[in-house]
Amino acid sequence: MRGTEALHLRLLRLLRDEGAISRAELADRLQMPRPRLLAELERLVTLGYVAEAGLAASRGGRRSTLVELSPHLRFAAVDLGASSIDVEVVNGRLETVAVYAEVADIRTGPKAILHRVNDLLHKAKVDGAYERLHAVGIGVPGPVSFRDGTPVSPPIMPGWDRFPVRELLTREHGCPAVVDNDVNIMAIGERHGGVAHSVDDFLFVKIGTGIGCGIYLSGEVYRGNDGCAGDIGHIQVDAHGPVCSCGNVGCLEALFSGAALAREATAAARGGASPALAERLAASPTDSVTALDVAQGASEGDVTCIRLIRDGGRRVGGVLAGLVSFANPSMIVIGGGLAQLGHILLAEIRSVVYRRSLPLATGNLPVVLSELGPRAGVAGAAVLATDVAFAEAS
Amino acid sequence: MRGTEALHLRLLRLLRDEGAISRAELADRLQMPRPRLLAELERLVTLGYVAEAGLAASRGGRRSTLVELSPHLRFAAVDLGASSIDVEVVNGRLETVAVYAEVADIRTGPKAILHRVNDLLHKAKVDGAYERLHAVGIGVPGPVSFRDGTPVSPPIMPGWDRFPVRELLTREHGCPAVVDNDVNIMAIGERHGGVAHSVDDFLFVKIGTGIGCGIYLSGEVYRGNDGCAGDIGHIQVDAHGPVCSCGNVGCLEALFSGAALAREATAAARGGASPALAERLAASPTDSVTALDVAQGASEGDVTCIRLIRDGGRRVGGVLAGLVSFANPSMIVIGGGLAQLGHILLAEIRSVVYRRSLPLATGNLPVVLSELGPRAGVAGAAVLATDVAFAEAS
Repeated sequence: MRGTEALHLRLLRLLRDEGAISRAELADRLQMPRPRLLAELERLVTLGYVAEAGLAASRGGRRSTLVELSPHLRFAAVDLGASSIDVEVVNGRLETVAVYAEVADIRTGPKAILHRVNDLLHKAKVDGAYERLHAVGIGVPGPVSFRDGTPVSPPIMPGWDRFPVRELLTREHGCPAVVDNDVNIMAIGERHGGVAHSVDDFLFVKIGTGIGCGIYLSGEVYRGNDGCAGDIGHIQVDAHGPVCSCGNVGCLEALFSGAALAREATAAARGGASPALAERLAASPTDSVTALDVAQGASEGDVTCIRLIRDGGRRVGGVLAGLVSFANPSMIVIGGGLAQLGHILLAEIRSVVYRRSLPLATGNLPVVLSELGPRAGVAGAAVLATDVAFAEAS
Repeated sequence: MRGTEALHLRLLRLLRDEGAISRAELADRLQMPRPRLLAELERLVTLGYVAEAGLAASRGGRRSTLVELSPHLRFAAVDLGASSIDVEVVNGRLETVAVYAEVADIRTGPKAILHRVNDLLHKAKVDGAYERLHAVGIGVPGPVSFRDGTPVSPPIMPGWDRFPVRELLTREHGCPAVVDNDVNIMAIGERHGGVAHSVDDFLFVKIGTGIGCGIYLSGEVYRGNDGCAGDIGHIQVDAHGPVCSCGNVGCLEALFSGAALAREATAAARGGASPALAERLAASPTDSVTALDVAQGASEGDVTCIRLIRDGGRRVGGVLAGLVSFANPSMIVIGGGLAQLGHILLAEIRSVVYRRSLPLATGNLPVVLSELGPRAGVAGAAVLATDVAFAEAS
């Protein structure tokens, strides 16, 4: 999409990101002749994407009229997790109109899960959140063929392989839909409205149930040849480490992830190495402790909790140091559930990355926590939804 | 560079890559109105970039005239190695017109080395290889600020940090110049005229004195935020390994590179572990053996030589497996001096990459040897030179 085709996309994005703008300023910003802009705006008004928004402040001559995205535009953003469904309806400015969330096991399969998604969206309609949707964006916790709009061999999503997610949503809601993986939509969310705002080259590292990486290069999400770029959870970090769910040995996420940390923490609680964790284990109805318990233990100064977090940070840092040498990004954002381990984790990751990578690459390389936290995914799905609708607005 | 600006670049590239084309076919191929194409061609003829080349075969109506790049166009391509200068003069079709090579130590500094480069180019002029140069492309063995046209903190190039290489060449030869690192120009060469022809996402891994990686993503060289992307030689592969020249421990190139292999092979020869290497050591005037000796020993079936190559391949493969998980490329090309270790090396790298990376990413991932071999660098420098000249032709 280049040159003339991209014009309405650029125009609509500008209105999305900056709100009402005068026709005169739009022509300046888009560097296009006024007559062509006016024709384009006319078309977008007819299509229901753009609306008049009163008179602009005078620039000396005749006052230009403001235009903005139609207040009737609505987009659905969906973030599927391993055990959760998050849905938001947003307007053209990406402002939240309605929010729904429920617990759901992704392993119950695409029909059951997407049925729940559609139910929530129909409920939103009944609740008055929208009259019609202009696009749906959805993130799923596994590799996706972005082109085909389907998951591809997703390890933790039995039954989802090649399931036509985009097609089903498009048919159900009568609008374009777009499917991406959960880490990419988090990266998109963080770039649009979070800590990576307008950063062109950065890595978004999600540390949660598993570990994955969203990659922004030259201002675009990089998805790789098969759509599985960023699958860093299965990079080997210890040739003598534990067997991973993927069948290989010593993968990063077999050593440090939500599941691995809970396992190690529970063992430490049982073995008496950690008073803080033992106390929480005793109070646990499931006879186990979680990453959150480790975070709380560490904040109380429990040495074992701090060590567990540091060990994990060192391993993540080792992998990231290699990726920094390879990709030379200008920022690393740490998100996902284990980002709650906070500054102990961050300090250890930083320390390894800054020590191990080429000084030229780390001279000005912020390593920071996600700003949007648990909302990053749904925020990014909303951005994707608007992009796909704007691109098709013609 | 988009839309209208890129037109003459696309046009000149087409003539470079495909030779004489009729005006009619050019209009079709570039999808542009005939009058605009004719005006653009007229301008490029005036500038001396394009020339008439007779009549095309009839397409039914009036015969269209052929156009081609001017036969007078000349470009200089320079590949600086740690201990070598390679220079070629090529025409607009990238056909070699003259070749010069000499031994030179990059550590003698930019003034001495670029003085030699200029001498060789002046000799080429005296030899009749060109009347005037239209651009110079040069690769250097270290990180480069592509934007500034200077090396940046290059570890093995004392005195070159921020030296204005592009400016000096531009002034000397009165034409645009472009500076990139040696691995990037090899990747460019391999994509233009080698095994990666028209592959959009691939990694070119140079294993020579050091180890580096040229990265093509979405059809463009990816250089990273500071121009040092692809610095994979300093990824840690063994926390208990030897100290690297960079000061860290266990870097890939401290364990496997031309220098590391020569060191290990010499030790094996002295220790009596390898009859093939011992024989070559005895005959060596420098009392040492090289990577080439190891390659020859392996081809004779010497077990130690084969083991040395396999160990190296395993380490390179481990790093590449991680990069495949991260970047999901569609091809890996192995080049540089140690590519002479050939299929034993390749087999070991393949084995590790295919075993360790996500099946989705390796399902269709050729791992192949460079096709252009030692000429890859100079070939890529020539492509870069034509690109910069074509982009400035206006």
